[in-house]
Amino acid sequence: MGSDSTFAAQKRASGGLPTTVATANGVRGRAASVIPRGRQIHKTFNNIKITILCGFVTILVLRGTIGLGNLVSSESDAENQQLIEETNRILAEIRSDKDPTDPDDQTGEFLNPNVTYTLGPRITTWDEDRKVWLQKNPEFPNYVNGKPRILLVTGSPPNPCDNAIGDHYLLKATKNKIDYCRIHGIETVYNMAHLDMELAGYWAKLPLIRRLMLSHPEVEWIWWMDSDALFTDMVFEIPVSKYNEYNMVIHGYPDLLFDQNSWIALNTGSFLFRNCQWSLDLLDAWAPMGPKGPIREEAGKILTANLKGRPAFEADDQSALIYLLISQKDQWMNKVFVENSYYLHGYWAGLVDRYEEMIEKYHPGLGDERWPFVTHFVGCKPCGSYGDYPVERCLKSMERAFNFADNQVLNLYGFRHRGLVSPNIKRIRNETVTPLVNVEQFDIRHSVHPSSGSRS
Amino acid sequence: MGSDSTFAAQKRASGGLPTTVATANGVRGRAASVIPRGRQIHKTFNNIKITILCGFVTILVLRGTIGLGNLVSSESDAENQQLIEETNRILAEIRSDKDPTDPDDQTGEFLNPNVTYTLGPRITTWDEDRKVWLQKNPEFPNYVNGKPRILLVTGSPPNPCDNAIGDHYLLKATKNKIDYCRIHGIETVYNMAHLDMELAGYWAKLPLIRRLMLSHPEVEWIWWMDSDALFTDMVFEIPVSKYNEYNMVIHGYPDLLFDQNSWIALNTGSFLFRNCQWSLDLLDAWAPMGPKGPIREEAGKILTANLKGRPAFEADDQSALIYLLISQKDQWMNKVFVENSYYLHGYWAGLVDRYEEMIEKYHPGLGDERWPFVTHFVGCKPCGSYGDYPVERCLKSMERAFNFADNQVLNLYGFRHRGLVSPNIKRIRNETVTPLVNVEQFDIRHSVHPSSGSRS
Repeated sequence: MGSDSTFAAQKRASGGLPTTVATANGVRGRAASVIPRGRQIHKTFNNIKITILCGFVTILVLRGTIGLGNLVSSESDAENQQLIEETNRILAEIRSDKDPTDPDDQTGEFLNPNVTYTLGPRITTWDEDRKVWLQKNPEFPNYVNGKPRILLVTGSPPNPCDNAIGDHYLLKATKNKIDYCRIHGIETVYNMAHLDMELAGYWAKLPLIRRLMLSHPEVEWIWWMDSDALFTDMVFEIPVSKYNEYNMVIHGYPDLLFDQNSWIALNTGSFLFRNCQWSLDLLDAWAPMGPKGPIREEAGKILTANLKGRPAFEADDQSALIYLLISQKDQWMNKVFVENSYYLHGYWAGLVDRYEEMIEKYHPGLGDERWPFVTHFVGCKPCGSYGDYPVERCLKSMERAFNFADNQVLNLYGFRHRGLVSPNIKRIRNETVTPLVNVEQFDIRHSVHPSSGSRS
Repeated sequence: MGSDSTFAAQKRASGGLPTTVATANGVRGRAASVIPRGRQIHKTFNNIKITILCGFVTILVLRGTIGLGNLVSSESDAENQQLIEETNRILAEIRSDKDPTDPDDQTGEFLNPNVTYTLGPRITTWDEDRKVWLQKNPEFPNYVNGKPRILLVTGSPPNPCDNAIGDHYLLKATKNKIDYCRIHGIETVYNMAHLDMELAGYWAKLPLIRRLMLSHPEVEWIWWMDSDALFTDMVFEIPVSKYNEYNMVIHGYPDLLFDQNSWIALNTGSFLFRNCQWSLDLLDAWAPMGPKGPIREEAGKILTANLKGRPAFEADDQSALIYLLISQKDQWMNKVFVENSYYLHGYWAGLVDRYEEMIEKYHPGLGDERWPFVTHFVGCKPCGSYGDYPVERCLKSMERAFNFADNQVLNLYGFRHRGLVSPNIKRIRNETVTPLVNVEQFDIRHSVHPSSGSRS
């Protein structure tokens, strides 16, 4: 509107000029009969100047309003703009790809609320089937060197982030996970596909976990980890033997869960599921609030009404799990370990400013508030446009967490970051002709687990 | 320059106006003595109108030139702009981080050309030292289940890509490598640090490879792979036993190398180095053309003069290796396997349009022109601003290669992409209550290597 009134004013101004000139002409015209020829020439000259001026004004109006000034922008701006446009065009073409002949390629249709959603046909004999399979396939054991086989699962949507910097931090977070998993002999799956369009978004982990369990019988634990969670203790290992009698390990607080029914009593950004029948059953009980549309909307109202502190929004997987475990406590809780002795999930805001203090006072391997196992950037949403925190604070904090972790990896190679905000590294040990001395001293795998090197 | 002359013209125009007015005043002034008072008022009125007009013109000049018009852009544009500015600001702060007290934190200084660059102190007993270490550390064997231990090394610069879409494709390429390595029991290192500022850019792989060899004595082969190379045959495995007598495996053509001295006779985008003394020696012989500045510039001239088809630019690692192997053929070539029976490196332009034909006629596992092992997007440079090919062609082709590969991974889970350009997937097998049947049939590891499952 501002531009309209300004433009209108300019239009009136330019539209008014001819009137003024005409008036001036008229004035001068009336006086022409008494003004000498020389004066007439001057007046004509003035009129010409005013006309030229009008022309300038018109051009400037156009320039400012429709951006003709861009025609004279720097060459690189034009190239950048062209690059961005080309990129967007091809991506739009990619994203719009649909197969009209495919009855399954339907978007926009919501599940009938009267039909209970299921993740798949109900399996009831998974424990026995899996046991038989493992016996028949000894080359695919579920325990290696006395350690259960763990599969770390993470992922992100298939499309580029709304915010350009988001993909860069997804990449860094992925490198972070690659490092931890290499050091600790954990396999990784990075998912970028929607296995079930009904359960898109944060619910997507449910069909994914089920699918991976059933496709990887050799895996003993499936460990889901959000894309915005970083390992910050590269030495700490999950004390799996602590959970021999459990099928799910999740970070949280029992009093928040059962006494307060708080919607943040547990965190589904980092948790473990044993590959067993119980877990399949829990997933089946968990999923019904998930299908997008009216089901998820209505479920969200139930959750907000029943969970302390929960804002009003559609059902999310974390609230749904909390509600499920509260309302069916007796059925599930004997196999759920609510863990808070270390940061299986560590909320970032209380941690990232203390890294220097941690470096000074403590050491990797503790996994708790002294040296957090996982720093989880809840609410930052670097991939989207609207996080819950200021962008600068989030980016800087993620950079610090990444470098805090990377220092622990680079230590073996004799380097560390120049500062927790710097991408640049500096040497902390000179090159030597006897590098194997450093391997024995600084390779995390040698200190953690004498037999972890071969994963055999 | 265009904008400068236009602005100058506008400046002259606006700067000229007062002169015109003054002249007009002067003209009118001389006539004042003979013009009645009414006319005087009219003239004053005209002057005021011209002054106001000047004011408008000035404002419009400012608006068009410095973009005050942006103040009235749409709200979301303003938010986006703010987001981008905040992001750039914090990133600039991050990138500018320097420690003024650190004598090593010096940029902009080039190595003295009279001093021969070295990657590190010369090691001469690596084979013996490593052998002793392996004997003393049986829990870190270099052969597992009869297979030599391979470490795949890749990476990208620590800063976000110049082109926003670049980080998204780095992420996808990383997922692609995670998948292949998981299936084949290969460990991965993703490097995002400059270990040696002298050898930045494509040369960075040299100090990295050396550092990893010396820090991971348990690794038998280091496999460097560019960030713009994708696995497109998820079944094919490198026939390592073929290279028992060799220390380096690189894709190329011997006739191009020795008969034509072509600068593209070999490709350093995907190659293997055995972890041994010979490789350390080769790295030492390879590195001297690398240090940035006058050394690299001068070396580039030598390479252009001696290698067929090489354009004029600074020395790159690939040309330098080719030149080294040609000029010191007798010293090195008996241990270098120039491989072209499968696509250890597959130049993308001749491959990506044939994927549908491959799907129709062939199957994974061949690794050659029928089903390329690796599709390498040489020249696309999605992370930078200026690739050698049109952006659209590159992005679409990378999308196709990624999905062509991803289909082979998703096959186990019962899905494939809707089309080679689509991020969306469709079910190709119904869910079943007996999922283990599908595992035995579709898990690549079961077909490739009966004992590959445990990596033990």
